[in-house]
Amino acid sequence: MKPLHIKLAATLLAVWLVATAQAADPLPSWNDGHAKQAIVNFVEQVTDSSRPTYVPAEDRIATFDNDGTLWVEHPLYTQAIFALDRVKALASEHPEWKTTEPFKSVLADDKAAMAKFSEQDWAHIIAATHAGMNTEAFLEIAKQWLTTAKHQRFQRPYTELVYQPMLEVMNYLRTNGFKTYIVTGGGQEFVRVYAQKVYGVSPEQVVGSSIATKYEYRDGKPVLMRLPKVFFIDDHAGKAIGINLFIGKRPYAAFGNSDGDREMLQWTTAGDGARLGVLVLHDDAEREYTYGPAVGLPDTKVGTFPIGLNDEAKKKDWIVISMKKDWKVIFPFEKK
Amino acid sequence: MKPLHIKLAATLLAVWLVATAQAADPLPSWNDGHAKQAIVNFVEQVTDSSRPTYVPAEDRIATFDNDGTLWVEHPLYTQAIFALDRVKALASEHPEWKTTEPFKSVLADDKAAMAKFSEQDWAHIIAATHAGMNTEAFLEIAKQWLTTAKHQRFQRPYTELVYQPMLEVMNYLRTNGFKTYIVTGGGQEFVRVYAQKVYGVSPEQVVGSSIATKYEYRDGKPVLMRLPKVFFIDDHAGKAIGINLFIGKRPYAAFGNSDGDREMLQWTTAGDGARLGVLVLHDDAEREYTYGPAVGLPDTKVGTFPIGLNDEAKKKDWIVISMKKDWKVIFPFEKK
Repeated sequence: MKPLHIKLAATLLAVWLVATAQAADPLPSWNDGHAKQAIVNFVEQVTDSSRPTYVPAEDRIATFDNDGTLWVEHPLYTQAIFALDRVKALASEHPEWKTTEPFKSVLADDKAAMAKFSEQDWAHIIAATHAGMNTEAFLEIAKQWLTTAKHQRFQRPYTELVYQPMLEVMNYLRTNGFKTYIVTGGGQEFVRVYAQKVYGVSPEQVVGSSIATKYEYRDGKPVLMRLPKVFFIDDHAGKAIGINLFIGKRPYAAFGNSDGDREMLQWTTAGDGARLGVLVLHDDAEREYTYGPAVGLPDTKVGTFPIGLNDEAKKKDWIVISMKKDWKVIFPFEKK
Repeated sequence: MKPLHIKLAATLLAVWLVATAQAADPLPSWNDGHAKQAIVNFVEQVTDSSRPTYVPAEDRIATFDNDGTLWVEHPLYTQAIFALDRVKALASEHPEWKTTEPFKSVLADDKAAMAKFSEQDWAHIIAATHAGMNTEAFLEIAKQWLTTAKHQRFQRPYTELVYQPMLEVMNYLRTNGFKTYIVTGGGQEFVRVYAQKVYGVSPEQVVGSSIATKYEYRDGKPVLMRLPKVFFIDDHAGKAIGINLFIGKRPYAAFGNSDGDREMLQWTTAGDGARLGVLVLHDDAEREYTYGPAVGLPDTKVGTFPIGLNDEAKKKDWIVISMKKDWKVIFPFEKK
């Protein structure tokens, strides 16, 4: 063999070794550390049939919160921004909104007033923007908005502001026989619009909050009309209730980031055998945001991570992910 | 080749041909006819990628009513019998029931009085027998009952009184990439107890009626307590609403047997492309029961098949299965 050939062979070998090493790492966007290791260990525990912690594939359920766990929730939940945009889009049909709160403040773009909106104010906005049409029309409106709207800071569509390391976890779990569910306080129908394409999660595996619908015939066709009435709030205790209602099995792994995910993690990790509870901590102001009083970060109404949750995480061996330390990249578009 | 060898070869060939023909028929308990052919044609239409009616596997959803469509519902819904048995089992803890309706009539086994029970009476019975325990305890109670209770006429466990031809349809659809859901007016948790074992349908693919649950800590463990309060009635319009809520996709095929399935079939068959609506008609008194005024059979409160439903079936090309003519056997234990 001539030197050139040897060099070529060595290069090819090196490329092959690197490629193999990369292929073997199911979580390439994660830095080595406690969080990554805990996830990998958990998967080994439930998939190795020689261990007492083995779980048959049909029972491998993992649940993921959405806002702040799978995609950006700051400065405001994406669906809330959608609702505010819809108020503006519908304003010409509602001249009375110019003088009626909470619409008046939205149309005037009065951020100080909006920051003080009560739950009742938000209920009015949701009723005005999320109800009164049939389910298919709503899906189309949400789809259109997601295609065109951009996040003010990142200047990208919201569906690009998903966390690459979490996409890898979802894929890693699915490769290992898990069904991955989204369990969100956000609107079930809203998340279903993009969950398949963005997360690889089909509509029937999206559990979320919902409003009531009414079955009617219109123009000779059956439709489901969306009513301005809350049906189910899939948040806090509602997440454990929603999991039982929609899935009927206790998850083996649950991923969240805020107080609203506490009961989901409690319910999940109270089961027998190997269970995994994970919380994403937003501690990376440079690449994303920082918030969470539990770790001395600013408090916020959007995605609260209180001191009590951090204490419970320590006590129950829930993994707290540091976005800053544990994640090599935050978003898919940062990948080299 | 000697004559004996020829004869042997011919016999083997005949055996092989019969075996192959049997293996090739996905619906061996069905007589040839319009109903069987319609089901086979539908599956070919949605699975043949060269046809305009082709449906990608991820969208192949089929929904099945339970009572009267997959298992016997006469003389009374199985879950109602379970509730009555539970009243008797719990009577010693409730001495007041001896003098309080509707419990008094149940404990006296007064069939004439029970036949006249109002919805309110049944609500009292359900509240007394289906609530007040946590979800896991309820599943255990239902499981125990299903193991021991027997149908009065057939003297077999209720889970043996499932329709063999429908098991074949479910299996045939799954083999062709369908997800098979149960969409029942009955209790979601009750059906989840046995659906995997009996129908091959996992808990997350059982959509049904439900009562409210409350998340609580008891003895240091989180539990979901069942409350005596209706949460969702998955019947009539509720079936279309439930399908959208739990599945988020319109089915391509729906199977029912009564007025309570009408909206599910409407919703399903109003979709584009090839859709299949099927109704089971109970017209076989000898092997099962006969009921349904639509076809001159006795009326009954349990599994009503009114004239209007039959008219709509004709108009919309829904298939009406005659149990008597279309099914070679009714139950798995009749198979030779």
